[in-house]
Amino acid sequence: MMDPLPPSSFAELHKGLSALPASDEVAIAAAAVREPQLTKPAGALGRLEQLVVWLAGWQGRHPPRADTVKAAVFAGNHGVAGLGVSAFPADVTAQMVANFQAGGAAINQLCKAFDVTLSVEALDLEIPTADFTTGPALDEAAFLAAFSRGMASVEDGLDVLCLGEMGIANTTAAAAVCAGLYGGGGAEWAGSGTGVTGDALANKVRVIDAGLVANRSALSNGVEVLRCLGGRELSAIAGAVYGARLRRVPVVLDGFVCTAAAAALEKVHPGALDHCVVGHISTEPGHALLLEYLGKTSLLNLDMRLGEASGAVLAVAVLKAACACHAGMATFAEAQVSGSGG
Amino acid sequence: MMDPLPPSSFAELHKGLSALPASDEVAIAAAAVREPQLTKPAGALGRLEQLVVWLAGWQGRHPPRADTVKAAVFAGNHGVAGLGVSAFPADVTAQMVANFQAGGAAINQLCKAFDVTLSVEALDLEIPTADFTTGPALDEAAFLAAFSRGMASVEDGLDVLCLGEMGIANTTAAAAVCAGLYGGGGAEWAGSGTGVTGDALANKVRVIDAGLVANRSALSNGVEVLRCLGGRELSAIAGAVYGARLRRVPVVLDGFVCTAAAAALEKVHPGALDHCVVGHISTEPGHALLLEYLGKTSLLNLDMRLGEASGAVLAVAVLKAACACHAGMATFAEAQVSGSGG
Repeated sequence: MMDPLPPSSFAELHKGLSALPASDEVAIAAAAVREPQLTKPAGALGRLEQLVVWLAGWQGRHPPRADTVKAAVFAGNHGVAGLGVSAFPADVTAQMVANFQAGGAAINQLCKAFDVTLSVEALDLEIPTADFTTGPALDEAAFLAAFSRGMASVEDGLDVLCLGEMGIANTTAAAAVCAGLYGGGGAEWAGSGTGVTGDALANKVRVIDAGLVANRSALSNGVEVLRCLGGRELSAIAGAVYGARLRRVPVVLDGFVCTAAAAALEKVHPGALDHCVVGHISTEPGHALLLEYLGKTSLLNLDMRLGEASGAVLAVAVLKAACACHAGMATFAEAQVSGSGG
Repeated sequence: MMDPLPPSSFAELHKGLSALPASDEVAIAAAAVREPQLTKPAGALGRLEQLVVWLAGWQGRHPPRADTVKAAVFAGNHGVAGLGVSAFPADVTAQMVANFQAGGAAINQLCKAFDVTLSVEALDLEIPTADFTTGPALDEAAFLAAFSRGMASVEDGLDVLCLGEMGIANTTAAAAVCAGLYGGGGAEWAGSGTGVTGDALANKVRVIDAGLVANRSALSNGVEVLRCLGGRELSAIAGAVYGARLRRVPVVLDGFVCTAAAAALEKVHPGALDHCVVGHISTEPGHALLLEYLGKTSLLNLDMRLGEASGAVLAVAVLKAACACHAGMATFAEAQVSGSGG
């Protein structure tokens, strides 16, 4: 398809969100016809069966595939990193991007293991967002630029897109975004992130609450919440979710930060994340609460909390399994197996 | 190693279970030294980190591997299948074995997807076990023969062994085994299996309860419970678990039937399943209860209830991910990434 144009204003983005493409009913029907003919008791593959229908609908194709898969990881730096909210110094964002590029991070190993292409986009790491306790993290132009980078990361021909992030202090930003979207304060949404506890965690809660006060005029709109309390990598993730919808590419979200970024779109337009599943549930406590608000159940629960799209790429194994079973299994008739009650 | 001799009597089996090999502390220590040096916050890979230590210990090797993986699926027929406990006729056991051999079942697609070798062993399908509502399902010789087939399915050189089963009516047998091991009756342990509900489920409960009465003298010993209420495929799974322990091959159990078979060994000798993880939790309700008794948490929860080792083989993806991250990631020093608090 022609490259979808990135929105040049918030008004255009809202217009786009109100006219998102729907799932393909023909592909869904084809999956629903084949599935009960396969040699297994009805429903015995559980979520794998539902995933096949979901993939078919959003890919607009039957049978669906999970062969050409890309993980897009966005990195950004945060003004609030200077406020002692992370166990790691802000330099680590750039150091980890170098580690991704050198192949040394967890996500590199996971992409190799599951045949997923990795793209890493460092978003102006030398320009952290503004400290959100004193005003908006990003202005509109910077938000839209990052959003557009996210959109551009989605190309035609992808079967599935995994999204993830890296950014020291970004669980603080994500918690603030969630509080902005759904109410509650730092105490409800903050967790230990990379490993802050005790006084440092109490400080993280205070920073989030200060951000909510400083940006209270933004809290009525999901995208504004993301601009004022999020960051470049969160904005890019939202853009990638939006771009994937326009290109009919199903998305696997990663953990807390990634899901928080995507949630801003759902807040503006319920159903905006219908083409997304959540790869895993993070031990970051805000993630469980956020998934409840979104009405989504993660595919995996392995006590992970790394980010980098690690939980999303691991969940690709489940999608591959679902597609392989649906496409490759024999029917009762083909295998001459007696059906239920037969 | 030399092939471990199968036990020629119950007394020999009990002796073997009291002298099982332990986990390798040297390999565990090596994994524990490397893991915190890898470029991620401590513990951020959650269960993947624990799995690496577990695999290293039971393989007696660091780093551990999950490259050479085999799924052994055992099939058996059951006398109680004639009592209306399944939605499918007993012929389906042999028909599904043929489907496995022809490559048409779910397990074939999953093995291909995750590079797992499949072996299928049909255990005297033409001789169902005796109807356990009138006496023991198997005599000692038949039990030991099936147990020995299971042991023989484990060869040297395997990194991981997945176990699974096929047998019309075997969730009835598994529920009876669980009730025999842990108490409770059919009502506590029976589920819908391949799809029985209402009156048919009530009948399944009665069949299980009748089996418990008819075999009450067996209920004091785990292996006797398995012989009297189980079946050939359950006996073989217990044998494979035992054989894998002797050869230092970590095991991934599948769902309710597979775990019930293995549980008999744990009942005789607590710790006998320390070299086993449970791949997934089945929607068959007895599985959750059984995992509670065993103190094990499954790796996956995808609402599956197919058997055939399907949940075990899907969980191999998690083991591969764990090994890939542990072996392939750069250390903080190698990647020049600042550590926590650095």
